[in-house]
Amino acid sequence: MTPFKSPSADIIWSLVHVAEAARIDQFDGDMTGEILAHFASFAEGVLAPIDAQGDAQGCRLQDGKVLMPDGYKDAFAQLVEGGWQGLTAPEKFGGLQMDTLTAAAVSEVFSGGNHALQMVCNLVPGAISTLLKFGSETQQNDWIPRLASGDVLSTMCLTESGAGSDLSRIRTKAVADGATWKIHGEKIFISGGDQDLSSGILHLVLARTGDVSDGVKGLSLFLCPSDVGGTKNAITVTRIEEKLGLHASPTCQMSFDGAQAELIGAQGAGLKAMFTMMNHARLDVALQGVAHAARAHDIAATYAKERKQGRTSEGHDAVLSDHADVIRMLETQDSLALGARAMAHVAIVELALGARPELVDFLTPICKVFCTEAGITSADLGLQVLGGYGYLTEYRVSQTWRDARIASIYEGANGIHAAGLVTRGLRAQGGAGADAFECLIGELGQTVELHKLTQTWKNARATVEAADDPTLFGYEFMALTAELFFRAVWVRMSEVAQQSGDADRIDRLASRVARRPLPVALPF
Amino acid sequence: MTPFKSPSADIIWSLVHVAEAARIDQFDGDMTGEILAHFASFAEGVLAPIDAQGDAQGCRLQDGKVLMPDGYKDAFAQLVEGGWQGLTAPEKFGGLQMDTLTAAAVSEVFSGGNHALQMVCNLVPGAISTLLKFGSETQQNDWIPRLASGDVLSTMCLTESGAGSDLSRIRTKAVADGATWKIHGEKIFISGGDQDLSSGILHLVLARTGDVSDGVKGLSLFLCPSDVGGTKNAITVTRIEEKLGLHASPTCQMSFDGAQAELIGAQGAGLKAMFTMMNHARLDVALQGVAHAARAHDIAATYAKERKQGRTSEGHDAVLSDHADVIRMLETQDSLALGARAMAHVAIVELALGARPELVDFLTPICKVFCTEAGITSADLGLQVLGGYGYLTEYRVSQTWRDARIASIYEGANGIHAAGLVTRGLRAQGGAGADAFECLIGELGQTVELHKLTQTWKNARATVEAADDPTLFGYEFMALTAELFFRAVWVRMSEVAQQSGDADRIDRLASRVARRPLPVALPF
Repeated sequence: MTPFKSPSADIIWSLVHVAEAARIDQFDGDMTGEILAHFASFAEGVLAPIDAQGDAQGCRLQDGKVLMPDGYKDAFAQLVEGGWQGLTAPEKFGGLQMDTLTAAAVSEVFSGGNHALQMVCNLVPGAISTLLKFGSETQQNDWIPRLASGDVLSTMCLTESGAGSDLSRIRTKAVADGATWKIHGEKIFISGGDQDLSSGILHLVLARTGDVSDGVKGLSLFLCPSDVGGTKNAITVTRIEEKLGLHASPTCQMSFDGAQAELIGAQGAGLKAMFTMMNHARLDVALQGVAHAARAHDIAATYAKERKQGRTSEGHDAVLSDHADVIRMLETQDSLALGARAMAHVAIVELALGARPELVDFLTPICKVFCTEAGITSADLGLQVLGGYGYLTEYRVSQTWRDARIASIYEGANGIHAAGLVTRGLRAQGGAGADAFECLIGELGQTVELHKLTQTWKNARATVEAADDPTLFGYEFMALTAELFFRAVWVRMSEVAQQSGDADRIDRLASRVARRPLPVALPF
Repeated sequence: MTPFKSPSADIIWSLVHVAEAARIDQFDGDMTGEILAHFASFAEGVLAPIDAQGDAQGCRLQDGKVLMPDGYKDAFAQLVEGGWQGLTAPEKFGGLQMDTLTAAAVSEVFSGGNHALQMVCNLVPGAISTLLKFGSETQQNDWIPRLASGDVLSTMCLTESGAGSDLSRIRTKAVADGATWKIHGEKIFISGGDQDLSSGILHLVLARTGDVSDGVKGLSLFLCPSDVGGTKNAITVTRIEEKLGLHASPTCQMSFDGAQAELIGAQGAGLKAMFTMMNHARLDVALQGVAHAARAHDIAATYAKERKQGRTSEGHDAVLSDHADVIRMLETQDSLALGARAMAHVAIVELALGARPELVDFLTPICKVFCTEAGITSADLGLQVLGGYGYLTEYRVSQTWRDARIASIYEGANGIHAAGLVTRGLRAQGGAGADAFECLIGELGQTVELHKLTQTWKNARATVEAADDPTLFGYEFMALTAELFFRAVWVRMSEVAQQSGDADRIDRLASRVARRPLPVALPF
């Protein structure tokens, strides 16, 4: 079993040299490097070592309380002690007020070390953003300090049975009760719906204040704490799900039986408020994919260097990584990890720059889809490199695969993002997002091949825009767009290979990326 | 949870109309249909219902004995009672002497219903073939009736720690002891190395009679029974592995401590004898992939027809299978299942015809690789169709994925088969296998697209043949060759669509297959 090792140097290179994060005033590469080094050592020493145990033991529901696996409570206490839960919160609320790039670097390493625990802890930055944007001053003062200090964790309560990707079907109701509201309904698939880590939980609940026929316009967002004035709120965890992976992240079915809640933002504007949280979560999920891609590559590369197999042409003992097909798999993993990370970093830097919000909206689903699939593909290749040993529990690459697999499903199934890209994504502001994307590709690199692929993409865009039903092209257009973005960041990475510490590696991977087949048949 | 349903009609259509199995004298389509109907009802009623339980409970090693999950002993007793273990054994040894096509149909359904149990039971036909080909008359009389009656099951003991894909590293030794031999060594990854189903086990063990420096030429094959004359042989199961899937198939680590054994075939010719068993096993593994592809499609299609999601353009409630991306996933699954099955059937019919052994050798690794990957891909797509529910244990498509995943690793990792195809596969008998493959493509279909793709393939073949190190093209050439074969069987299926019972389905799938991107960038 290969212990988790944070890919810190790759992350910093990607932020500083590939995504040029220094364009953001607040960003200081040296400071981020130091913070990341601290967190990496914490992740390697504390978070990652309990990951296998968490997977084996899982969470339990006992007397209505969710119990986390052994060691998780202590690890969370250390996380809180280190101030990591308040990394991005404003200083006036007790946070460290770090930039989103640093937070992204930390979040990736957290997911690589222990995805399940990251799931439970890392809805907090999104909850803080939502409060900062839509919460009242009282709500901000009440909750942000507690979120930043780790006194409370937060959840995102959207999904209901029969209303996952389709939020218009939400049936949970909120009924006004003087200045507050009472929530009635059932939610499912709530990550961290309960746990024994934090003293309280702040649930952000999407509930219906209007009629079912109002669809998503009848939805409002609520703050619904686990305890109100020292008394348990009327919220019950009715079961935790048995899942393929992420066993240490309790996925809860929850019943709200007149639970007391406060409205956040305007009545009927719940989805808009939730999107703040969801867009944050989507880029964070993209980084989970990156984390798994890098982790699976590390496990496979370490194994392949050591495992004897066959003979060299001179008759010496060879190792796995001497064989062409193993090299193919390892290099594919590495190119996916670096490329996906660069894509996510470019998007997060754009988000922080704030100058092209239409570009950020366009890039977010692309990163979510490509990076999560990169994580799954890399985990799958890692499993194949290890062969029979990969299929065993003890080498843990199969856990990476099982954990990575959820990422293409949650925070919007990848097919839904593809459908969104060819409809809203291309139409918003007369195609401004797609136009900005084309500019971005030109900014990232200027090779003949990239230019040719951009032309191909433009033709595809025209085809999709002219279609009666563009969703027929959703998968293909998403795949082609993501491929173009991936190749563009690889051109960019080639240009700054010298700064990477191993220019040969970058050159070798770039040339492999250039030989990738297109993911779709053209023209379409 | 969708109960297992045997795809019997698709199987019979594929055998009779696509692969034209009636070219084999022994084959009788009606008889095969009847036998398959019997077995399907047994698989649906007995084998499949214990599959989830077997996955959850797994096997245990207790006091040196492997205990199978609850219900497995009874299911095996019924399997034996039905005569299924002797399906292909000659009548003179108590078997039913059925053709290999019928056996293939039965085996696929067995794997679809309960892959883990199929693993434990289905090394028997290969063991019988090996005995028929290399065993003495006494060995045949001693063992074939017991294998056919289900009194004993068999294993294939090849792999050792550090000697999986690389058999030249085998260290297990056989020492002559009068007329018999004593085996000393450790074997790992032995499926069904012990179980509590059959009264005895016949281990087929590859052991070294020569020196390690002799490589594979120093290997011989042995019959090593679990009991000799009523006394337990010196064989110990030292542990069973914890795996990603196939929990009801005990994967054993075994110690042979002077176990009494008999040589099968000539000394030093062990690998050759083992290959009889392995080639049988490889086509059987291909059918496991087919089984998973079909099963995952059935789960996903059933779910997608029922699950409400969104609205139609007329404003009615829509279901999942109304959405373009879900249709894409379902049709991809279905096209993989049907195409992979047809590929395997074509190869097995060629094997039974016996006229082109070089073609069978060429097709076997292609089927192994493509069909196992089809199973994994279809399971993965099925999981995605079910979304969050797919990630839950209870919908069982995640078990399909976990079980399917081993198939691209065992019986020769897929990368090893790819390397074999570009070396031995292209070189054997001056390229006779590849030439016969080209003929076969022409026999399967004559469309402009297929002709064009064949030319592309011929160019690729020339490139590979001219290369100093053809293994650099292993992955690409395997992928392209398999794609050509897949598309060719789809052309063939289109031609016999009318006989399928649902010609529209075949036409729709064929047109989706025609829009697949090529799996590799060309030229290479």
